[in-house]
Amino acid sequence: MKPSTDLKVLFAELADCLDERDLHQDVPPAHLHDWSDERAGQPLALVTPRSTKQVSDVMAVCARHSIPVVPQGGLSGLAGGAVPSEGCLLLSLARMNAIEELDSAVGTMRVQAGAVLQTIQEQAESEGWMFALDLGARGSCQIGGNIATNAGGNRVIRYGVMRDLVLGLEVVLADGQVLDLMQSMKKNNTGLDLRQLFIGSEGTLGIITRAVLKLSPGVGGANTALIAFANYDQGLQFLKQAQTAFSGHVSAFELMWPDYYQFALKTLGRPDQFDRDYGYYLLFDVQSSHPEQDYPKFEQLMADAFENGTVENAVLASSERETEELWQLRDCVSEILSINAPTINFDVSVSLNRIGDFADQLKATLDERFPNLITLFFGHVGDGNLHLVAGPVQGGKEMEHAIESEVYRITRDFSGSVSAEHGIGLHKKKWLSHSRSEAELALMKSVKQAVDPQGLLNPGKIMD
Amino acid sequence: MKPSTDLKVLFAELADCLDERDLHQDVPPAHLHDWSDERAGQPLALVTPRSTKQVSDVMAVCARHSIPVVPQGGLSGLAGGAVPSEGCLLLSLARMNAIEELDSAVGTMRVQAGAVLQTIQEQAESEGWMFALDLGARGSCQIGGNIATNAGGNRVIRYGVMRDLVLGLEVVLADGQVLDLMQSMKKNNTGLDLRQLFIGSEGTLGIITRAVLKLSPGVGGANTALIAFANYDQGLQFLKQAQTAFSGHVSAFELMWPDYYQFALKTLGRPDQFDRDYGYYLLFDVQSSHPEQDYPKFEQLMADAFENGTVENAVLASSERETEELWQLRDCVSEILSINAPTINFDVSVSLNRIGDFADQLKATLDERFPNLITLFFGHVGDGNLHLVAGPVQGGKEMEHAIESEVYRITRDFSGSVSAEHGIGLHKKKWLSHSRSEAELALMKSVKQAVDPQGLLNPGKIMD
Repeated sequence: MKPSTDLKVLFAELADCLDERDLHQDVPPAHLHDWSDERAGQPLALVTPRSTKQVSDVMAVCARHSIPVVPQGGLSGLAGGAVPSEGCLLLSLARMNAIEELDSAVGTMRVQAGAVLQTIQEQAESEGWMFALDLGARGSCQIGGNIATNAGGNRVIRYGVMRDLVLGLEVVLADGQVLDLMQSMKKNNTGLDLRQLFIGSEGTLGIITRAVLKLSPGVGGANTALIAFANYDQGLQFLKQAQTAFSGHVSAFELMWPDYYQFALKTLGRPDQFDRDYGYYLLFDVQSSHPEQDYPKFEQLMADAFENGTVENAVLASSERETEELWQLRDCVSEILSINAPTINFDVSVSLNRIGDFADQLKATLDERFPNLITLFFGHVGDGNLHLVAGPVQGGKEMEHAIESEVYRITRDFSGSVSAEHGIGLHKKKWLSHSRSEAELALMKSVKQAVDPQGLLNPGKIMD
Repeated sequence: MKPSTDLKVLFAELADCLDERDLHQDVPPAHLHDWSDERAGQPLALVTPRSTKQVSDVMAVCARHSIPVVPQGGLSGLAGGAVPSEGCLLLSLARMNAIEELDSAVGTMRVQAGAVLQTIQEQAESEGWMFALDLGARGSCQIGGNIATNAGGNRVIRYGVMRDLVLGLEVVLADGQVLDLMQSMKKNNTGLDLRQLFIGSEGTLGIITRAVLKLSPGVGGANTALIAFANYDQGLQFLKQAQTAFSGHVSAFELMWPDYYQFALKTLGRPDQFDRDYGYYLLFDVQSSHPEQDYPKFEQLMADAFENGTVENAVLASSERETEELWQLRDCVSEILSINAPTINFDVSVSLNRIGDFADQLKATLDERFPNLITLFFGHVGDGNLHLVAGPVQGGKEMEHAIESEVYRITRDFSGSVSAEHGIGLHKKKWLSHSRSEAELALMKSVKQAVDPQGLLNPGKIMD
């Protein structure tokens, strides 16, 4: 804030930009945190604008008074990317939640940033399309936040990350300028692709106010199997065979390590469907418009994989109920988290061909150093993304830090990413340099300086 | 160049960075132009470094003396993006053409920037994979240039543009710093995705020296058809039906307008396979690992489309020879170009649902203003990409400019892109503002200034 700024004047100017009910000097507690336990500072106030014009006007006021602004979506983030910093204005996009247009002929959707993911999915489905982004927080996360964090989730192996699903963007810059990139073209090579700057920038370069989304053809169902491997290499070989057979159409490749698999069975109170233990378990799924048409191909793939020794054992789901039961093995994570609470959860990625060794090394290191810690490994391995749940963490922040140090050190040794999908926010700032070089950090800072010279947008997130 | 720079000193310093044979003070004429007829200025010299270290050293020397540098790939560009500017050093990546590694287990390839596209494709194929980028210049274009221009081409509808096929990048910045972004992870949300800055920046932000490419599963063949529609909306409806039936696996959707179709038949000396004229002709193709397995689905799609009136007529290829003959209709463009020479060729895009009207308006305007001009429309319409060939252009540069003015004015009216895939380079600079706003151009300039403060990299390209 400028030394000359009088808070009364500031609030009067903000009030001129907005409806009275949209300037909240008492900030509701729900806006002080996200789904992580990160805390930062006390905000000045919260605004809930209803249009791009209002966002732009608010930003112009803030720029004039050098007031930092923290944009907020559904606040379901896990990295503290949207929690208030001291003395900031919180700007929630929640009131801008309209689905402005669904073009059913070509499969595009124009939405405001505050539209909730699940609403977007349902609208698409009602017109025979699918919006492919999907994640656990679908009922509360907002598309603006999904874009700002380049969300990943359940369908990346087939449809890519959020970046791959954005056609157009509207962004309000730190000085209040509106950048209209609301195109719906797949191909547009006219200079720098500025959309890419803002996707995944966690609100540090601009405030995303609207977007044009790419829809995918709707699917009718899936062929699903639970598959057992003896070793990681078999899993990789099977992935290649499956992607070749289905021309890249594998829609889930969720690998589970034995400890996780056994824990999931116990949690669900279910017997093992296999008569012996294996090295790896895979939830495997190929969606299509008419899964029954694809069943022979699916069966053929499994038969071939048996014959050439790629898979050790498999259970093919033969009804919707069986499919659901298989998916519960992967979807019971939240129950596993509560049983092992307090847990610490990791979201890391390394090259696909090194995940087996990477998990082995993580496990050996953590088992040795923290013998009472239960460590469960699973993940969207088709995307190179490994999740690790470790708990119960009885030793408080100090033990958390010790576990993080080990995990991120090994991640660095494997040239991996300390954040595959959750972003950096506040939570992973101290580990960022494990994945990004000095030169990269310096260039990020130059870009930030160029786009937001006063450093007003989401200060202290990603980097200082 | 700094006033204090002595050319002898400069050349001596460059000679210290390179093998003697890689500093060419007599620039071979092939390096003075690309496949367009754009000309800019006389270069100082050409260097052909053999390693990232050499590129870095050369850049450091140039930064010290403020010498502009123009990076060159295969010089098959159509926009003058790599032609010399006055007093520049040309830096060709041609000697850095190694394929460093193909990881066949996971489908990634590590290459140097000078590797030729076709070589990369063939290497991938020899291991059961496919590198999905494909374009006419495949035999001479280099992957570094493909990345720098975010190339499109023949398979975008299914596999996306070059941006979608890059996993990792190595870039030398204007000051000689090497930026190592050579990751192979699909998911990595650790701050700004710097790779995106350089892809499509036409060499104005950094020199791409190496890349990690994403490979796709190999295909065994395709089901192909030539389809006739009465109107554009039928085409759009068929696209939706086909994408739904094949879950997004349509691999070619090349629409031809009647004038083009008839011209192609005449050029190939072939009778029409249909017994009457139609409004639109489509070359339609679905590749897969085992096309024969997919044939029933393909036939079913066509039967359904007939029944619900989406298509008017169709010819299904029933042999490789027939498939080839259908593709010749689209591949004879180069012959059409010579017959109508001198031609002027456009590469524009608008929203998919407006291409029909867009082409109608272009045709009506050009027919009225240039009654003797033959205008042929066709394109990767599944990507929103329309190509227009107009010729013969007998009135020289003045007539060219008049035609361009009309075409780009209408493109702007349709909120379209003046360059869907070819880039801006020198050729389309004057039309850039038809597709990008003042605010966008200002932001591009800020980013350029932040990344290349001396403005040494490919000066005068995209923008001044």
